Amino acid sequence: MRFDPSTLPDVSGLVVGILGGTGDQGRGLAIRLAHAGQRVLIGSRVSERASAAAAEIAEISGGNVQGGPNAEVAAGSDLVIVAVPFAGHADTLRELVEPLRGKVVIDCVNPLGFGKQGAFPLPVEEGSAAEQAAAILPESRVTAAFHHVSAELLANLDVAEMDLDVLVMGEDREAVALVQALAGRIKGIRGVHAGRLRNAGQVEALTANLIVINKRYGVHAGIRITDL
Amino acid sequence: MRFDPSTLPDVSGLVVGILGGTGDQGRGLAIRLAHAGQRVLIGSRVSERASAAAAEIAEISGGNVQGGPNAEVAAGSDLVIVAVPFAGHADTLRELVEPLRGKVVIDCVNPLGFGKQGAFPLPVEEGSAAEQAAAILPESRVTAAFHHVSAELLANLDVAEMDLDVLVMGEDREAVALVQALAGRIKGIRGVHAGRLRNAGQVEALTANLIVINKRYGVHAGIRITDL
Repeated sequence: MRFDPSTLPDVSGLVVGILGGTGDQGRGLAIRLAHAGQRVLIGSRVSERASAAAAEIAEISGGNVQGGPNAEVAAGSDLVIVAVPFAGHADTLRELVEPLRGKVVIDCVNPLGFGKQGAFPLPVEEGSAAEQAAAILPESRVTAAFHHVSAELLANLDVAEMDLDVLVMGEDREAVALVQALAGRIKGIRGVHAGRLRNAGQVEALTANLIVINKRYGVHAGIRITDL
Repeated sequence: MRFDPSTLPDVSGLVVGILGGTGDQGRGLAIRLAHAGQRVLIGSRVSERASAAAAEIAEISGGNVQGGPNAEVAAGSDLVIVAVPFAGHADTLRELVEPLRGKVVIDCVNPLGFGKQGAFPLPVEEGSAAEQAAAILPESRVTAAFHHVSAELLANLDVAEMDLDVLVMGEDREAVALVQALAGRIKGIRGVHAGRLRNAGQVEALTANLIVINKRYGVHAGIRITDL
């Protein structure tokens, strides 16, 4: 059973919320997904910032983008991407347990530290940011994905296609398939099922290696799974 | 400064020892490296097993391969690949502190557990197998590499080229460059510098994701770094 994107569900009609949509990673994903025709809601702690970012992203992408406070965005979305800094990750999610109940949550947070010698993974008590999210949101369908996508390339629509695969982890096969399909909405990206949440930590941490490679070779590195 | 293999040192005259060369991973690497013209020494705890494996690998590869006890192989090699099971990793290295002094050590051990739900990373007190090696071998030049190569594809010379990049981690830039060059001796492989040893753990652990992908999609997955 080779990788076959045609077996994935149709997610084109689903609403995608992005918590932390005003940050680089969230903004980049919002631009690409809205450009692909996905309806996108930008969430922020400060509603006015979300609205301003949404207006800018709508203009860049030519898509359907609105902004609002995190709780409203969570409640109004089918799939909710968590793209907040790791420092605020647990606190943000603790406030959103109710609106995220039953939702497919897509954690794309990379717990990294930065020192004189570059990026390195931070230890996370739960094993990974995604497992931390699952612990805080026991009634949400938590997945992990979109860790390695370059925010800069995402935001630049002159780059016609992204050149990487997105590894999707999760316990809930149906939720994983939805996230794989969502990743596949961005041109050039394949969403590849890569295990359960206990295998999310190393995918998050691998972002540190990609940052090292970016610096050393002057590139925007991603990864492709070969033989697939 | 894009990735440019022509800037890497010439390692074609160096002797490569493989501790655990009778296991699948070590055997596969031995076959490819000997086939590429590298002189290879196969190490094992049991000298007769090493000699038998070396004879078989010499025949398959058409290369220059000898076998011997681990300590002799370590002492007689320039670059020493550690391809033993994680369960015996620390004990094997503790016995080889002397013969490995000053050597470039290439740890390719993946500390993984296997349960009903597939592969998952094992916690390692030192952070990674490679950092464990560095702690045991303070006077060796420890690097980490070759974690994701498929033993089955390596051993099958009908597969003319491998289709993956090898991430090389290490503190010692010169040692890292030698290992990058060694990886590049295998057709299809690029050796990419991907950080210090503190960034080795997630590369080792990512092997669990590749095993999941292999099982799910019926492939021999590797990774390529894109934009490089």
